[in-house]
Amino acid sequence: MALAQNLSSKWISVSEPHPHVLHVELARQARKPVNAFSSELWAEYGALLDKITHEGRDVRALVLSSALPKLFTAGIDIADLSKTETDFPDGARKSLSTYHHLKEFQHAIGAPERCSFPIIAAVHGLVVGLGIDIISACDIRYAAEGTQFTIKEVDVGLAADIGTLAYLPKAVGNQSLLREVAYTSRLFSAAEAERMGLLSTVVPGGREEVIAAALKLASVIASKSPIAVSSTKRILLHSRDHSASDNLEYTAAWNSAALQTNDIPETLRATKSRSAPAFVPLRKAAAKL
Amino acid sequence: MALAQNLSSKWISVSEPHPHVLHVELARQARKPVNAFSSELWAEYGALLDKITHEGRDVRALVLSSALPKLFTAGIDIADLSKTETDFPDGARKSLSTYHHLKEFQHAIGAPERCSFPIIAAVHGLVVGLGIDIISACDIRYAAEGTQFTIKEVDVGLAADIGTLAYLPKAVGNQSLLREVAYTSRLFSAAEAERMGLLSTVVPGGREEVIAAALKLASVIASKSPIAVSSTKRILLHSRDHSASDNLEYTAAWNSAALQTNDIPETLRATKSRSAPAFVPLRKAAAKL
Amino acid sequence: MALAQNLSSKWISVSEPHPHVLHVELARQARKPVNAFSSELWAEYGALLDKITHEGRDVRALVLSSALPKLFTAGIDIADLSKTETDFPDGARKSLSTYHHLKEFQHAIGAPERCSFPIIAAVHGLVVGLGIDIISACDIRYAAEGTQFTIKEVDVGLAADIGTLAYLPKAVGNQSLLREVAYTSRLFSAAEAERMGLLSTVVPGGREEVIAAALKLASVIASKSPIAVSSTKRILLHSRDHSASDNLEYTAAWNSAALQTNDIPETLRATKSRSAPAFVPLRKAAAKL
Amino acid sequence: MALAQNLSSKWISVSEPHPHVLHVELARQARKPVNAFSSELWAEYGALLDKITHEGRDVRALVLSSALPKLFTAGIDIADLSKTETDFPDGARKSLSTYHHLKEFQHAIGAPERCSFPIIAAVHGLVVGLGIDIISACDIRYAAEGTQFTIKEVDVGLAADIGTLAYLPKAVGNQSLLREVAYTSRLFSAAEAERMGLLSTVVPGGREEVIAAALKLASVIASKSPIAVSSTKRILLHSRDHSASDNLEYTAAWNSAALQTNDIPETLRATKSRSAPAFVPLRKAAAKL
Amino acid sequence: MALAQNLSSKWISVSEPHPHVLHVELARQARKPVNAFSSELWAEYGALLDKITHEGRDVRALVLSSALPKLFTAGIDIADLSKTETDFPDGARKSLSTYHHLKEFQHAIGAPERCSFPIIAAVHGLVVGLGIDIISACDIRYAAEGTQFTIKEVDVGLAADIGTLAYLPKAVGNQSLLREVAYTSRLFSAAEAERMGLLSTVVPGGREEVIAAALKLASVIASKSPIAVSSTKRILLHSRDHSASDNLEYTAAWNSAALQTNDIPETLRATKSRSAPAFVPLRKAAAKL
Amino acid sequence: MALAQNLSSKWISVSEPHPHVLHVELARQARKPVNAFSSELWAEYGALLDKITHEGRDVRALVLSSALPKLFTAGIDIADLSKTETDFPDGARKSLSTYHHLKEFQHAIGAPERCSFPIIAAVHGLVVGLGIDIISACDIRYAAEGTQFTIKEVDVGLAADIGTLAYLPKAVGNQSLLREVAYTSRLFSAAEAERMGLLSTVVPGGREEVIAAALKLASVIASKSPIAVSSTKRILLHSRDHSASDNLEYTAAWNSAALQTNDIPETLRATKSRSAPAFVPLRKAAAKL
Repeated sequence: MALAQNLSSKWISVSEPHPHVLHVELARQARKPVNAFSSELWAEYGALLDKITHEGRDVRALVLSSALPKLFTAGIDIADLSKTETDFPDGARKSLSTYHHLKEFQHAIGAPERCSFPIIAAVHGLVVGLGIDIISACDIRYAAEGTQFTIKEVDVGLAADIGTLAYLPKAVGNQSLLREVAYTSRLFSAAEAERMGLLSTVVPGGREEVIAAALKLASVIASKSPIAVSSTKRILLHSRDHSASDNLEYTAAWNSAALQTNDIPETLRATKSRSAPAFVPLRKAAAKL
Repeated sequence: MALAQNLSSKWISVSEPHPHVLHVELARQARKPVNAFSSELWAEYGALLDKITHEGRDVRALVLSSALPKLFTAGIDIADLSKTETDFPDGARKSLSTYHHLKEFQHAIGAPERCSFPIIAAVHGLVVGLGIDIISACDIRYAAEGTQFTIKEVDVGLAADIGTLAYLPKAVGNQSLLREVAYTSRLFSAAEAERMGLLSTVVPGGREEVIAAALKLASVIASKSPIAVSSTKRILLHSRDHSASDNLEYTAAWNSAALQTNDIPETLRATKSRSAPAFVPLRKAAAKL
Repeated sequence: MALAQNLSSKWISVSEPHPHVLHVELARQARKPVNAFSSELWAEYGALLDKITHEGRDVRALVLSSALPKLFTAGIDIADLSKTETDFPDGARKSLSTYHHLKEFQHAIGAPERCSFPIIAAVHGLVVGLGIDIISACDIRYAAEGTQFTIKEVDVGLAADIGTLAYLPKAVGNQSLLREVAYTSRLFSAAEAERMGLLSTVVPGGREEVIAAALKLASVIASKSPIAVSSTKRILLHSRDHSASDNLEYTAAWNSAALQTNDIPETLRATKSRSAPAFVPLRKAAAKL
Repeated sequence: MALAQNLSSKWISVSEPHPHVLHVELARQARKPVNAFSSELWAEYGALLDKITHEGRDVRALVLSSALPKLFTAGIDIADLSKTETDFPDGARKSLSTYHHLKEFQHAIGAPERCSFPIIAAVHGLVVGLGIDIISACDIRYAAEGTQFTIKEVDVGLAADIGTLAYLPKAVGNQSLLREVAYTSRLFSAAEAERMGLLSTVVPGGREEVIAAALKLASVIASKSPIAVSSTKRILLHSRDHSASDNLEYTAAWNSAALQTNDIPETLRATKSRSAPAFVPLRKAAAKL
Repeated sequence: MALAQNLSSKWISVSEPHPHVLHVELARQARKPVNAFSSELWAEYGALLDKITHEGRDVRALVLSSALPKLFTAGIDIADLSKTETDFPDGARKSLSTYHHLKEFQHAIGAPERCSFPIIAAVHGLVVGLGIDIISACDIRYAAEGTQFTIKEVDVGLAADIGTLAYLPKAVGNQSLLREVAYTSRLFSAAEAERMGLLSTVVPGGREEVIAAALKLASVIASKSPIAVSSTKRILLHSRDHSASDNLEYTAAWNSAALQTNDIPETLRATKSRSAPAFVPLRKAAAKL
Repeated sequence: MALAQNLSSKWISVSEPHPHVLHVELARQARKPVNAFSSELWAEYGALLDKITHEGRDVRALVLSSALPKLFTAGIDIADLSKTETDFPDGARKSLSTYHHLKEFQHAIGAPERCSFPIIAAVHGLVVGLGIDIISACDIRYAAEGTQFTIKEVDVGLAADIGTLAYLPKAVGNQSLLREVAYTSRLFSAAEAERMGLLSTVVPGGREEVIAAALKLASVIASKSPIAVSSTKRILLHSRDHSASDNLEYTAAWNSAALQTNDIPETLRATKSRSAPAFVPLRKAAAKL
């Protein structure tokens, strides 16, 4: 079965431009603002990533981008907010409903952390509000040179609650600048984002160039041992949230099993024979698809 | 009541240059070195910020700077150290006295974290020793281009113990450079500080320019929903000290209540009517002042 | 006794170029690739640092570099891996053996964190695989301008498990770029390393220049109070792995004792008399050597 | 709709003996040993609890017991283990498959922690292996006087990995006794279990008596405010895994919303009028069912 | 100055029945239910303990009891709740006000943890709601044999939020029983409380007997080295909230200073001379009072 | 080689009363008080346990007891304390020396946690001061019925700093009683210790009976799969210091490797054939001895 088969949906298109590499594009242009995220869209997004994981498809890297010419995403669809139920018996039950909604929303946007492969966000144009939550939960961020970002939530009267404030402070290296843009909702450029430590690199050009660069990176990652890459991802996520000594202990436990992989002799064999190594899928399920 | 009323004290002057914005200036010039912090001064500093919080004044952003032309602060007042009591019955009781003194000192300098609004440090000239502790506990740091910094404590024979080593490693993005300047007490420039991730930006010009830039930023923040800004600050402080999943859980609990604010419809109303939104104070007490 | 006496071993040479400063050079050139780390070498490396600490030698700063002209280290010695035992009664016992091996390996490479003095890694040429683990566990990193780095493990089929993924995410300020180089094993330059926040500085020139710069820094550190420097190191390591409030509490407890040092009056005396301060060793044992 | 409608399945029967109280009975007697847990059964068990939560059914307490006369559960179905796949390409991929299997298994058995209402385990006869994991994840444990327990895993050659060792040490008050029974797999009586702190109480009599006592407790809980009970459960689970100060902070955030409930005036009204209070369901969805 | 001087207030009487021992009695009998806690009373309670600490009075143990014949406390004063402000501009600001109220309330009830000396709660009669929060934050609990307890909050429609759920799970050894009484608000006896691990002992007799026993214990504690007792308290509080290894590290740092006390030679001297040791106060301030 | 060969030393005798079971007896009777721990003795004790682990001897359970008729240990040897060096250049260096001494001391007494097999302390007579630290770090505690315990440190002017306050609060189920005996240094009986949750059981009789009971338990443990027992110990130690979810994650990683053991089929084989299972040693080194 083709890797991308049955994955595209209403507003998300999925293709396999390189072996083991998926390209996921957000394409909600039917209404304005375009690529605005309704509940339906973010549920679709989370479900897509969980489906790939659940089915054990042999994906080894994924690029996330926008199909639209001018922006990555306009953030949350405000029109969608107005559909919120309002007739709750009391403030506590209303809060509880909000709490469960937020947990579900966070779960969907946090899906990249549950994938065994790296996800590269390739952004261009405008990245607004929820767009920042989305790319914060990805592994790697590439931006086209004209990209502009805004943590828009404060401008709408709320604190970002879907991941931006949980992931971003741990991903960047300038808390002063991060707080400045979080408190003001002001636009910040790709250059500022890079200075803050948000981006791997700023890619000269626009949408096509940044996607090309991200796909190239993805195909390099996809050529590596999936045991090595997925273990690295897991250990890095653990490292972010634990002390160095806790992480070393976890890593020793994890690698005591992971080192029993044929990918190690396979890389040695390939090096000696000057050929490309060939790695079997991580999970058997992949073979069945 | 004017927002800044009854806040100025012996060595600290407080004004309200923009609505909901306080400007706090350190101005201890009576003796040399100027702006050196005696116990009395840091107690005054902590008490000022706690008083604003306790009274629920409707402050939405605060700029901290020095009133003196050549430096932000010379750090701790060495003369003050010599007043330390010495006749303790034994080493344990002496240590206990020191411990309580340090806790009180840390509490005063950590006051910005107890404020519901952001604090922007606008520095120029020299920032020495305790000056680094002070700005490390602030939300945002702006420096004039000629500013020089020194973590002076090692040069005096001790480890920085009032906040520098607790806050700074979590605020910047280059631990190698941070350790270098912490171990050597050498001066480092605004450019190096920016490269380390300590500063939002280096402002061309001197004291006046950096204060003007900080006040401009403060007035932007002050125009935003105080529920949104204060929730963002609280969640960012929590994020620094907890895992991503712990923070997401806390954020969902917090925002389940905070989202029940009129600031959200008010921002939508203002956007539609192309007018500035008007937000009521966070706390009722503010109205009484 | 000379500070470096009896410290050199088979592949590691140790000298004392400045008072209280050790220079440790890796020099395993007998076989190819040079400076590849066998079990024997990393055990020697960890034992050297622990011996210095255990004997209480009056070391106040240490520079780690390579004696070879073209590289810092080629990483793990692959030939050494092939000596691994294979006839285990079952997979669990094999994993357990691997687990114990990894813990021992991590312990050796983590030795810099157990030293009371700062360790400065001065690198040039190639820094491969284990080389990254080694410098990640040091306090400060200097690189010659042509240096190239690679987190090589993924290319060999495994996740880095000796410290890179535990220490590095907490030392740098761009997780996106860190993950990119960790997932791809690609070479990255000193300039990229600096941008990531890995290096204090890039030193123009090659091996000699970077070592000279590091030794100069070491001699500055060695001129400071050893109580101040070692307390700063301890508190910074604690800060990395604990919340700000936990760290402030620990610091108050630690400094309540450390402030009872004569190094404080000695620095004041030296400042007044415009002479260099003289500090006694941290530990008595030092006197005996 | 009746509360228990559409919940019973192949080996689990569900009834509603009191308003808002579910009684869940394990009844896998088709084969020997009876009530042994196959993958199918534990998946069914986890799915049942998640379904109740997901549908927002107005359950306020749940009693879990066994329908069989002689035992609560025989633990894992050994026959099921033999179906495990064996032809993995290497040890790492086999371990990864095991890892994912364990996570799924843990997730199912940990379902009680995801329910908003308390779950009371009412056990009799033998409680073996997985039976301990299951009751450890419940809120409250009642045992008939003749009940015998065994942490059976060590006798089968493995450490308990589905919850016993994660939940139990935090639930009881005698780690010495807990380790003794964990290391030996020996049977321990209800009296010993009570002394260890595992049980609320030992109920005189057998299966019927313990179920009656648990249902009585459940109906008391079901008569209370669901906001109060579910908030208490959430805060207790948080308390187990966080420091006291972290928990106080979380509780203040949580209750700042939860206190806006009509359940508080409703309880006051009921007290004054000497009538039973009536509480609306926690979630709207409940009304639709 | 007598130790208890100027400490008694409107509803709290303070005496010094033994040297260095304070007896604090709650005596709010003016209205029904007696000893119900208004905001005024709990503020008074917290302020009393903080005043003792702040002034450095030479208190070495404190007994907390009720002056009333029939109960320890009736819990929160419901009449007081009705004074709560209600006209908030929106739900978020109302929640924020509640949040700040809860934090202040928790701070007052948590005051015993900020005292350097142990606090022994000696209870009799009924201990209701807030009474449980209060005794949970104390070091030691003694109860007269007829005492009855109830975690009353669920009966009023809320989760206990002032300390019961934060402190109690970490203080007792039977989470099943704790959850049972927390979910039901049912009365539980001193015998059950002891079985749960809540009490040091159940004292035969009533109010007078339990107070006598607690005072006797207090006078034993007061005869010990205050450095030893206060260090033990501090380390135990740290131990509750940190891992064993973190606690050992903190303890080594703390005791490296605390062991430099004359209390150690003083105890040896007293032992040899068969006399009672005499210890100087912990803090100098004590001498001045 | 016999399991106990070359393990006995000056004051510690080691034998192998059952296969894979070591009996370690403290026997320092040359001077008064007997079994008092000098630095030499505790260093010997820690080294013994680490030697067993390091050599990979096939020990599967260990019983620790005293060879003397009247007591387990008199605690620290006061005479030894007086040998402490006193001529430090300043208070900070003295504290640092103390700190390093305490860390080394804690490391020795914490050795049981580094053993892969359970350690059962079998105590009788008096258990004083350091004796409590020692048994707190063991897995299981048995006491003869007349045993008396005292946390003696407060009586000597210090807080227990070698493990009692780090391990005990997490091992027992009554913090009120624990604090009472920690603050008073009073003797408490085996019955009280059992009520507190400190002991698995109180064994009728004296020294011989409690040792016999402990050896019997040890031989049961030694008959089990060493993979199962050692994994259980490791996971229980992790569980004590981490959240439930962290522990479940670690357990899944650990057991993904540990489940690949032949001990599982071996137990099934033995069950079917009604014979005793035979397990190979955990580590190969064992075979060589």
